[in-house]
Amino acid sequence: MKTLRDIGENGLLRSILPLLPQRPDTLVGPGDDCAVVRVPGSPDDWLFTTDPVIERRHFLPETPARLVGRKAIARAVSDIAAMGGTPLWILVDLVAPAATPLSRIRGLYDGMIAAARKWNLGILGGDTAEGDTLELHITGVGRIPRHTAVLRSGARTGDLVYVTGTLGGAYLSGNRHHLLFDPRLEAGRFLAENHFATSMMDLSDGLAADLPRLLDASKRGVRLEAAAIPLSRAARQSSHPLRHALCDGEDFELLFTVPPRLRARFENAWKNRFPRLPATRIGTILATPRQRLLHLSDGSAIPFRPGGYQHFLTHEP
Amino acid sequence: MKTLRDIGENGLLRSILPLLPQRPDTLVGPGDDCAVVRVPGSPDDWLFTTDPVIERRHFLPETPARLVGRKAIARAVSDIAAMGGTPLWILVDLVAPAATPLSRIRGLYDGMIAAARKWNLGILGGDTAEGDTLELHITGVGRIPRHTAVLRSGARTGDLVYVTGTLGGAYLSGNRHHLLFDPRLEAGRFLAENHFATSMMDLSDGLAADLPRLLDASKRGVRLEAAAIPLSRAARQSSHPLRHALCDGEDFELLFTVPPRLRARFENAWKNRFPRLPATRIGTILATPRQRLLHLSDGSAIPFRPGGYQHFLTHEP
Repeated sequence: MKTLRDIGENGLLRSILPLLPQRPDTLVGPGDDCAVVRVPGSPDDWLFTTDPVIERRHFLPETPARLVGRKAIARAVSDIAAMGGTPLWILVDLVAPAATPLSRIRGLYDGMIAAARKWNLGILGGDTAEGDTLELHITGVGRIPRHTAVLRSGARTGDLVYVTGTLGGAYLSGNRHHLLFDPRLEAGRFLAENHFATSMMDLSDGLAADLPRLLDASKRGVRLEAAAIPLSRAARQSSHPLRHALCDGEDFELLFTVPPRLRARFENAWKNRFPRLPATRIGTILATPRQRLLHLSDGSAIPFRPGGYQHFLTHEP
Repeated sequence: MKTLRDIGENGLLRSILPLLPQRPDTLVGPGDDCAVVRVPGSPDDWLFTTDPVIERRHFLPETPARLVGRKAIARAVSDIAAMGGTPLWILVDLVAPAATPLSRIRGLYDGMIAAARKWNLGILGGDTAEGDTLELHITGVGRIPRHTAVLRSGARTGDLVYVTGTLGGAYLSGNRHHLLFDPRLEAGRFLAENHFATSMMDLSDGLAADLPRLLDASKRGVRLEAAAIPLSRAARQSSHPLRHALCDGEDFELLFTVPPRLRARFENAWKNRFPRLPATRIGTILATPRQRLLHLSDGSAIPFRPGGYQHFLTHEP
């Protein structure tokens, strides 16, 4: 009998997503960072995303509850940032064992409330239920001026591939990046408003897992320059910096593509606007979807294969 | 150390909901069947609800997966019906152990897809994650013409209390009402459009749990007539029909109030529009919030106390 373990999260999504019924008012259905719908009369398109945050998967029993609450909201905000949008409202499903200490529950909500204040969000409620595992399920709702959402599917041949910040080691010992990251809200809006980005997503499962999703959506290949990939301090201090940068996940940086004719204009505008946040060019989009290469600093090239975290397939670290 | 078990779901909500930050564009925040927000330019107000459906809480391992998927969608649709609105879009977080058979996952989605088609909904996606328990977390989005959403808080002194259909025994042996119920979408819209209902909610945790929530929101009391409460066939065939009707939960009927001056007009219009669905008058709203009485058929009256299902407090049947 086949199970989820046999096909992994990607296999599950491939088999299910095409079957889901869609309404004509839906601009982007399943498979991007957010769904995008059109509302009669509104000057905006509307963005929806959901994110589960589950004990022992996304946080540990000893993780401070406030930081878990913060992370849950920040993940949804990051999905909206990855479209170029502005988050407005949050809903929360809380699942918890009856024996959960009230102080822990209060910590979760304190973290969510502080995060909502930071990003000017309303928390519209949600639901609570008893269950065996502590979980938060966050729904994020945002808006973006009509026709300006940046999708995963927009990369064109010759576009330059960029990432914000540095990658890898979000979970490495002593590194709390996966709890304390700031979603790239302003950067996402800047890229969408100025029409610099042809495609965009946030890096949640690692460049090796997420870039192939962008390439699949855009039906393109890539030439990546290994030496160009910006390594986090945690990754650099490890014994396998590049592997951490490619596979760790939870970077929550933006991955996006810019047409080559806009390169100088984009890079100058970026440096003016975000002097302290690097946007690093790490590769080029290729025409052939199956042509996906990682060029190493010694001049050789190896196939760039999907990696990173995949639910149902990847075992716990 | 205090835990969730010490305060129950109601205690949790009382302590947390007032703290949640709200935006000025939010008409109804946490605590009603749906949140209601205003979108610039739209002739509608927008409704949001979330509903968890968890194995061993809301369904059993032997429950057919298609019916679990159907129920998950129907619960969200029922929340939108309880405001008088029209559901449009659904998002789904799936949590599942890696060893879950693919056939079971496919059954869940088959049930959700059939339900989405039945109620003309788009399924916008969501997320999937590995976890110890099979769960669906549904977000429902709907709309309603501006200013017409019917809230829990609108009941006024002297209003008549009604329920649709019959109550009790949704889970009793041989009864699959909790899986096969039809949310009262048309009835909810009829009550909102015609301004018959001053307050409304759906009955998910049992009349004894839900009516007190409506009374608390409206700051009112009630005089209930025990003999008037419409009993389901399953409840009537049990040894404690009234207890089942009050406490079982998962009826997914509408509970609503109508001003006494509209009584004849409402009852005639209802019978014309819904000749096969009873709307039964079961009581009257009283001015004093603490005055909550259940009048029995022998002429005596007992206090109407909160009961029914409450997460974190009620033990499994």
